[in-house]
Amino acid sequence: MINVGIVGGTGYTGVELLRILAVHPEATVRCITSRSEAGMPVADMYPNLRGHFDLAFSEPDAAALAECDLVFFATPHGVAARMVPELMAAGVRVVDLSADFRIRDLDIWAKWYGMRHESPEWAAKAVYGLPEVAREQIREAQLVANPGCYPTAVQLGFLPLLEQGLVDVKRLIADAKSGASGAGRQGSVGMLHGEIGESFKAYGASGHRHLPEIRQGLASAAGSDVGVTFVPHLIPMVRGIEATLYAELNNPADFDRLQARYEARYRDEPFVDVMPFGSHPETRSVRGANHCRMAIHRQEHSHVVIVSSVIDNLVKGAAGQAVQNMNIMFGLRETSGLDAPALLP
Amino acid sequence: MINVGIVGGTGYTGVELLRILAVHPEATVRCITSRSEAGMPVADMYPNLRGHFDLAFSEPDAAALAECDLVFFATPHGVAARMVPELMAAGVRVVDLSADFRIRDLDIWAKWYGMRHESPEWAAKAVYGLPEVAREQIREAQLVANPGCYPTAVQLGFLPLLEQGLVDVKRLIADAKSGASGAGRQGSVGMLHGEIGESFKAYGASGHRHLPEIRQGLASAAGSDVGVTFVPHLIPMVRGIEATLYAELNNPADFDRLQARYEARYRDEPFVDVMPFGSHPETRSVRGANHCRMAIHRQEHSHVVIVSSVIDNLVKGAAGQAVQNMNIMFGLRETSGLDAPALLP
Amino acid sequence: MINVGIVGGTGYTGVELLRILAVHPEATVRCITSRSEAGMPVADMYPNLRGHFDLAFSEPDAAALAECDLVFFATPHGVAARMVPELMAAGVRVVDLSADFRIRDLDIWAKWYGMRHESPEWAAKAVYGLPEVAREQIREAQLVANPGCYPTAVQLGFLPLLEQGLVDVKRLIADAKSGASGAGRQGSVGMLHGEIGESFKAYGASGHRHLPEIRQGLASAAGSDVGVTFVPHLIPMVRGIEATLYAELNNPADFDRLQARYEARYRDEPFVDVMPFGSHPETRSVRGANHCRMAIHRQEHSHVVIVSSVIDNLVKGAAGQAVQNMNIMFGLRETSGLDAPALLP
Amino acid sequence: MINVGIVGGTGYTGVELLRILAVHPEATVRCITSRSEAGMPVADMYPNLRGHFDLAFSEPDAAALAECDLVFFATPHGVAARMVPELMAAGVRVVDLSADFRIRDLDIWAKWYGMRHESPEWAAKAVYGLPEVAREQIREAQLVANPGCYPTAVQLGFLPLLEQGLVDVKRLIADAKSGASGAGRQGSVGMLHGEIGESFKAYGASGHRHLPEIRQGLASAAGSDVGVTFVPHLIPMVRGIEATLYAELNNPADFDRLQARYEARYRDEPFVDVMPFGSHPETRSVRGANHCRMAIHRQEHSHVVIVSSVIDNLVKGAAGQAVQNMNIMFGLRETSGLDAPALLP
Repeated sequence: MINVGIVGGTGYTGVELLRILAVHPEATVRCITSRSEAGMPVADMYPNLRGHFDLAFSEPDAAALAECDLVFFATPHGVAARMVPELMAAGVRVVDLSADFRIRDLDIWAKWYGMRHESPEWAAKAVYGLPEVAREQIREAQLVANPGCYPTAVQLGFLPLLEQGLVDVKRLIADAKSGASGAGRQGSVGMLHGEIGESFKAYGASGHRHLPEIRQGLASAAGSDVGVTFVPHLIPMVRGIEATLYAELNNPADFDRLQARYEARYRDEPFVDVMPFGSHPETRSVRGANHCRMAIHRQEHSHVVIVSSVIDNLVKGAAGQAVQNMNIMFGLRETSGLDAPALLP
Repeated sequence: MINVGIVGGTGYTGVELLRILAVHPEATVRCITSRSEAGMPVADMYPNLRGHFDLAFSEPDAAALAECDLVFFATPHGVAARMVPELMAAGVRVVDLSADFRIRDLDIWAKWYGMRHESPEWAAKAVYGLPEVAREQIREAQLVANPGCYPTAVQLGFLPLLEQGLVDVKRLIADAKSGASGAGRQGSVGMLHGEIGESFKAYGASGHRHLPEIRQGLASAAGSDVGVTFVPHLIPMVRGIEATLYAELNNPADFDRLQARYEARYRDEPFVDVMPFGSHPETRSVRGANHCRMAIHRQEHSHVVIVSSVIDNLVKGAAGQAVQNMNIMFGLRETSGLDAPALLP
Repeated sequence: MINVGIVGGTGYTGVELLRILAVHPEATVRCITSRSEAGMPVADMYPNLRGHFDLAFSEPDAAALAECDLVFFATPHGVAARMVPELMAAGVRVVDLSADFRIRDLDIWAKWYGMRHESPEWAAKAVYGLPEVAREQIREAQLVANPGCYPTAVQLGFLPLLEQGLVDVKRLIADAKSGASGAGRQGSVGMLHGEIGESFKAYGASGHRHLPEIRQGLASAAGSDVGVTFVPHLIPMVRGIEATLYAELNNPADFDRLQARYEARYRDEPFVDVMPFGSHPETRSVRGANHCRMAIHRQEHSHVVIVSSVIDNLVKGAAGQAVQNMNIMFGLRETSGLDAPALLP
Repeated sequence: MINVGIVGGTGYTGVELLRILAVHPEATVRCITSRSEAGMPVADMYPNLRGHFDLAFSEPDAAALAECDLVFFATPHGVAARMVPELMAAGVRVVDLSADFRIRDLDIWAKWYGMRHESPEWAAKAVYGLPEVAREQIREAQLVANPGCYPTAVQLGFLPLLEQGLVDVKRLIADAKSGASGAGRQGSVGMLHGEIGESFKAYGASGHRHLPEIRQGLASAAGSDVGVTFVPHLIPMVRGIEATLYAELNNPADFDRLQARYEARYRDEPFVDVMPFGSHPETRSVRGANHCRMAIHRQEHSHVVIVSSVIDNLVKGAAGQAVQNMNIMFGLRETSGLDAPALLP
């Protein structure tokens, strides 16, 4: 049984970790910290957990965390960078769900996150935890940087095209849409139901923090710099991301084998589902589940490959992928705790 | 391993049975029938089931069903009444999620459902499957009538008051609200998103089919006829029922012990959660879970007990309760397959 | 042309006043104040007003307000009580959309609003602005207390029963439901889309600030104290209130003439629509409009009258009724600026 | 006063025409036809119209329609093509909201709409009614083909780029999203609230009927063939379209003057609002209004122009634009009946 700690458990990724770990057969949550809510039982904040956890939020305590086998960070950026070195020294393994260890170029990180990185040493050692790309490194990693939600949906959709050099890497477009839970659980006028309900908009269209992460991941897959335009949008719903991806085939004849190539690329992946050519994945088909479903489209007389990719932003886009990473790190069945189908309808 | 058959699996209760049974450790779905969709893989209709089931819908076939240990009916009313006798004769056990065997007075049934009942004999033998009331009879039953969604939320909320004779049984009011999945998956103008989205209304206020079922259940708990007014409403969301119940205490002094009485009544119930006095249960706290959560309120200078009771209409209000009944019938752990916390947010 | 001022215009009732007044043929908004947003053009905060208003928010300025013919207060409670006396002295007429002047018993007001009332003199002189009850007093009033949203829907639905002494006034129940805009536009975790979306709950079930206002209004209609239970609920949508009202007829034979009595009571009311017996009013049928639509129901063998009453909480429940009151106060056509049909779908 | 007829008034565009015309100072609806609902008062189907119209649906009757000054067709495709010639002969002017007269190449029309066009003569004479492009021809037209919803949002957003030859016309991408009312008011499983609520998906990604219309309009603006990829998506809300458009500048230096060029292009357009550079238009900012709001974005190191364009699909995307066209055709003030601000929140 793996002893798990969670730092910063009051947000949506925190409660989602608890929801998943509640039924994980091989992991137990030993402590969950929150400076602001210390003392409050988690089930008082999240009544879906009533009967599942007796645990209360506690003050962050390095000693208690050091006794865990694995610590998840579900904190605002900057916190993990500050706290991780001490845990590393204590031999604890960490999956960081924040953005602190995702970007390798710390100047870029500093620019987008508005602060100097406090742990450049571990930033260099961290493994970017997209299992479909880096499973072997994750297995050995002490520190895993769990990918962002949009970057997960976008990278998984583009990977086969880029790895196989099929498209013009300078002309990638990712039009992505997310439910409101992606913005977290901080009180703000802009995320009120009264502001978001029955409305739709783009946001961050001139530049969003997930852009450098996407660019880095796609460049790595392509083996060269890429030109990618990424525009996120806000959907009036709670969970789910859909990314519609556009790329130009270098050789239009490649269309014929595209579906087969996608299927081959992901044949052994337990959480990537390449649907039949021309399907339209719905976000609800992955609600609460760790799957990414995708499908390919082509319009007549066109060289443009269209890929529609969906995930649950809180699961494959956050807590589920974190547990998947934990499973890999500890040699467990990769789908352990992540077996249940999505909640549809 | 229990072999399970499902008759009429294309609706929301059908897919919900599949979702739950996909992870049930002691039951396997052997066949699922649909006259209209015979031949179609269930995962083609419900992509959340991709990777979980290879099964396809099949023509209803009495012989195949007779080989199951248990058959769930998730059919329009009238179908189970027609097909059940043959399965009973074959020794198969049945949980009927339709309304066919819920009402003991078949004249009342005929009036509300607009047809003559085709199996009066089994209507007399069926056990009304509310485990919190009839667990022992369910254990032995060959035919269980799974309660309706509204009746489940309303009965569980009122039971302690009626069983203990605390309130004026002639003045019960149940103001209930449901998400749209309660209306099933039939194409109709009235249930279009364009009609329901961003709007709220009462419906069936002059009389709804669940009224006689509620009346029967409450009368049984009270040991006498009851006067109950029941008004359902349609919420612009997919899943969830909230029922706000109003009753007049015979003796206002009983308020003091009411919370304790509710807690005592449901102490051993794995799926009923009496929240602290004055709580406000949210439907999302039971989304996808088999729980009924409830809380009691009192307003100053008032004899009126207010109970707010929430369930997921597709789980405790349909498929989850059906699996709970199966677990009881076959001597399994009652929560088997129903362990996961609700999906919140 | 009436010169209008608005104090506290950054919330939803503020923008709604602007939306309505933008097309009012006989009123012009001269100033709109907001301490926090002074200097910002209203159309920057509310892009639906682009092209309709050049106006910017300004610091509250008694002299500027004193030059208006009418000032609307759309402020948190306590503000109007403090500012109104000076405007009264200057001869300005005021419609206060806050709760400051709605409750005649200032001890009750103080208890529910948690502060001492700063203008008892004007609290005694204010007219409660429900035009269907007090049109003549409103016409002459210098200060009108615009009713709350729930109280409007509940009072209009109950009035004919109480005024005509048809029901047991000690046993009134109002089960009311509102969209999220009713909570205003303050950033709070509880009103985030991520908290409210796809969920439904009761709130304030042990006592809500609108309860004393409802009690006062119903008592006034009945000519005696009333016993009323009021439970509000939160609907996952933006606009709209539905109230389902329950009362016991003293004489069941009165059912026969009930529809006719409701129609007679509201025959000359431009904004109250008594729908055919047994209808189910939808909140969308009044979205953006100043109407209250209602319908009566009866269940078999029951003495209970059921009334379903719907309004748009921001229009008939706030800004629309305020403009209706302005129209009455200044002798304009009562429907001026309020002519457009609701937005459906 | 213009006498107006509406053919096919039971759908969402029909009721929206009625909503707008109810307050139009210079037009009166004389008849509204529906074969299936003949005899039913329009206010019985659409309660928001209670008190606004006494009109009932009538059987389509050529003689009655011939007495109108203008007839709107809000019918499924094929109907207007069949009925229009007779009205043309009678000298009636027509605005067709269906797709029958939008596509000039009737082979393309036949391919996408699955039938032979029944009125090639009038298809050749019809004016495509996008006022921002063809105001003068609309003024004189007897038959106006009202543009589709997606094509309106997409064309208005791209026009300045194409007319001025600023971008690579072979690489246009339009990622568009619509609320559910765009699918009309026909009962179908796929558009049930239970299917659409809390979910998001692309649809028609391999080819949608609006693609040829978009291609034709963009080619006309560019003066040459264009290569455009268009993917529509379904948003879980009722009204609103957002289109995010991507194009590559031929000369990146043009970015500097792009905002000014957009503003200049639309300076005199009453219904196109170019928001400040970097804004994010929300669909709610045009809900119920005839405006198209748009904003331009650029990401660092990129040649890609990003335009986000929003409309209400039932107003500027259908009924509102139809009334705008009527106003132009009859020499009325172009904004007549279309003055009210959008409903926000």
